[in-house]
Amino acid sequence: MTQELEPGMGNDRTHPFRIDGLQYNNWSEKIFRQWREGGLDAVHVTIAYHENFREMVQVIERWNRWFEAFPELIVLARSAGDVRRARDEGRTAVVFGCQNPSPIEDDIGLVEVLHTLGVRFMQLTYNNQSLLASGCYEANDGGVTRMGREVIREMNRVGLVIDMSHSGERSTLEAIELSQRPIVVSHANPHAWAPALRNKSDRVIKALAASGGMLGFSLYPHHLKDKSACSLEAFCEMVARTAELAGIEALGIGSDLCQDQPDSVVQWMRMGRYTKRMDYGEGSAAQPGFPPQPDWFRDSRDMARIEAGLRAVGFSERDTARVLGENWLRFFEAGFGPMQADAREAA
Amino acid sequence: MTQELEPGMGNDRTHPFRIDGLQYNNWSEKIFRQWREGGLDAVHVTIAYHENFREMVQVIERWNRWFEAFPELIVLARSAGDVRRARDEGRTAVVFGCQNPSPIEDDIGLVEVLHTLGVRFMQLTYNNQSLLASGCYEANDGGVTRMGREVIREMNRVGLVIDMSHSGERSTLEAIELSQRPIVVSHANPHAWAPALRNKSDRVIKALAASGGMLGFSLYPHHLKDKSACSLEAFCEMVARTAELAGIEALGIGSDLCQDQPDSVVQWMRMGRYTKRMDYGEGSAAQPGFPPQPDWFRDSRDMARIEAGLRAVGFSERDTARVLGENWLRFFEAGFGPMQADAREAA
Repeated sequence: MTQELEPGMGNDRTHPFRIDGLQYNNWSEKIFRQWREGGLDAVHVTIAYHENFREMVQVIERWNRWFEAFPELIVLARSAGDVRRARDEGRTAVVFGCQNPSPIEDDIGLVEVLHTLGVRFMQLTYNNQSLLASGCYEANDGGVTRMGREVIREMNRVGLVIDMSHSGERSTLEAIELSQRPIVVSHANPHAWAPALRNKSDRVIKALAASGGMLGFSLYPHHLKDKSACSLEAFCEMVARTAELAGIEALGIGSDLCQDQPDSVVQWMRMGRYTKRMDYGEGSAAQPGFPPQPDWFRDSRDMARIEAGLRAVGFSERDTARVLGENWLRFFEAGFGPMQADAREAA
Repeated sequence: MTQELEPGMGNDRTHPFRIDGLQYNNWSEKIFRQWREGGLDAVHVTIAYHENFREMVQVIERWNRWFEAFPELIVLARSAGDVRRARDEGRTAVVFGCQNPSPIEDDIGLVEVLHTLGVRFMQLTYNNQSLLASGCYEANDGGVTRMGREVIREMNRVGLVIDMSHSGERSTLEAIELSQRPIVVSHANPHAWAPALRNKSDRVIKALAASGGMLGFSLYPHHLKDKSACSLEAFCEMVARTAELAGIEALGIGSDLCQDQPDSVVQWMRMGRYTKRMDYGEGSAAQPGFPPQPDWFRDSRDMARIEAGLRAVGFSERDTARVLGENWLRFFEAGFGPMQADAREAA
C-alpha cells in the first residue's frame, strides 16, 4: 500500500491529491463542475444530519440519480482504491458520511447495513445527546454510553469510521480510547485559536493524533478566528501551530462548505425535530442564517488558494501535499475496510 | 373532582378501587378474566419497550382487536372518568404507557400524537441512555438532556405523564425539578430495602412525593428483598416504612407483572436492538429468564392478598384503599389532561 504519494501522479493531474474531508452543499451540476475545477479528487459528503434510516436511504437514492446523470464528473468511492481510480479517470470520488447516528436509529445491526450501502464515516453525536455519546452543546457530557461502546466495537469491525466533530470533550476522549482503530474529527479547528463550542481542545487534538486519527480543518466561519473576516494567513498560521502540536500526519482539510443552501437547511441542521422552539446554534437572532464565507474560500475552486497559503507560511511542498489530501487518502486506505483478524483478537 | 372515594362505590364493587400501575403480560382472554376476578378497575399496560413509533402503533392495533373482541371485560381509558365508568360497567380500564421514549424517536411532535392515540405514561429512559435522559444501568448519568428539557415541557403541556422507573438518580431528580407537573415512578421499590439498581433512593422517593408524584410498588422478584422468596409481610412492612418516609398519598401498586411471557420477551426488554452480545440485565447466565413470582402474588387475582397484607401490618381500611387504587385514580384525574392555562403561564 502506498504510504507516500508523489505530487501529480494522476494521469491528468499536475497537483497533489486534493481531498475535502467534509462538505454539505445544495448539490448540483454546477457544484460538481466546481469540484473538477478545484481539482478535488475526493469529497466526504454528508448524507444525514437528523435523517432516520429510511430518510438516509432516500438521500442515497438522490445521489444514485446524480451518479447516473453526471458519470463524467462524479463516482461513489467505497475505498481508497476507488479514489485513486477516480483521479485517474478525471472524476471526483464521493465518500458518504453521516453527521449523526440517527440513521442507525436504536439498531446496532444497521451499522453493517450502512457500510454495505457505502457509508464510511458516522459521527456519534451531533451537538445534542445521542444514544451513543454527548454532543458539544449539552451542559453535561456523560461520555460514551452502553450502546455507544457496542456501536464503536461494531463500527471498528466493519470499517465505518468514527467521527467526533460535534461531540463533547469527554465523549471524544473516551471514543479515542475505546476505539480499536483511529478515529477522526472531520471538520473543526483548535479551540485555543477560535473558542467555539465546536472547536477542539489541545488535549483532544493531541490524543487524536497520537492514536493515528485525523483532524480536518474547517472553513466554516463560526469555527474561524474573526469568523467571516478571518484571513487566509491567519488560517494557515493556525495550521502550522497545529502541526507543531500534533504532527503533520494528522492534518487535513474538512471545509464544512455549505454552499447554495437556503437558510431553512441551517435550521434543519440545528434543530432537527428535537424542539418546537428556535435554536440558533452557532448563530443568533440577529444572524440566524448561514454566515458569509471568507473571501479566499468561497467554494471548492479555492482549494488552490489554501495550497498557496500554506506554502506562504512556510510549509514544504511535501507537507502541503499531505495536508491537502495525502493524509486523508492514507487514512481512507487503512480505515474503510473490515478490521484485520489479528486486531479483532486483540480487541 | 372527587379527591376521596368511598370504598365500594361502584355498582358491582364491594371493595375499594383497585388499580395496578404497571403490567406487561402476554395478553389473553385468560388474563383479562383474571383482572375481573382480581377486581382490577384499571391497569396501566406497557405498549412499548424499544418499539419505534410505527411498531408502537402496531401494538395499539393489537389492543384495538382485543377491545373489539372482549368488550365485556376491557375498555381503553383516556381519563380518570373513563376508569370510573369502566368500574360502573364492570369492566377493567386499560391505560396505555411506554417504558421508553423510543416511540417518539427524535421527534418532539410525536409527544402530542402519542397522547391523541391514548398514551398516558412515558418513561424518559429504559435502563440505557436515551435522547432525553440517562438510564439506571449507565455508568454515568448526565441528567436531563437538551431534548429532554423540551420533551418534558411538551409532555407537561399535553398531559403525558413522565415516568422515571428505569432512570438514573440524577436524571430522576432533575426530571422532578424540571417538570411543571407531578411525575411518577410507576414500578420500583426503595433501594434501602432491596438494593437493585432499579430501586429508588430515599432522596428520590421524598422528592417525588413532595412534588405530588407517585411511587408504584413493584412485585417483580428482582426488586424485592430476598427476590422470589420475599414474604407478603416483609413487602407490606416495606410499604409501611415508605409511608412514614413519603406520606400515604404518594403510594400505589405497580406490580410489573410479566405473566405468561416466554423468555425471549425478557431478552427483548433487556437488549432491544442496542447490542449483539448477551445482556442479562437483572438476571444472570445462571438465571437468564423471568424469575418466579412470590407465591402470594402469582397474578392479578392476588390483589386481595396485598389488601389483606396491608391491613395485617396495621394500615387502616382508608389508607389501604388509597394504596390499592385511590391514589392512582386521583393522580389520573389531575395528570391526564392538558395543562391548565394558569400553570402554563407560570411555567
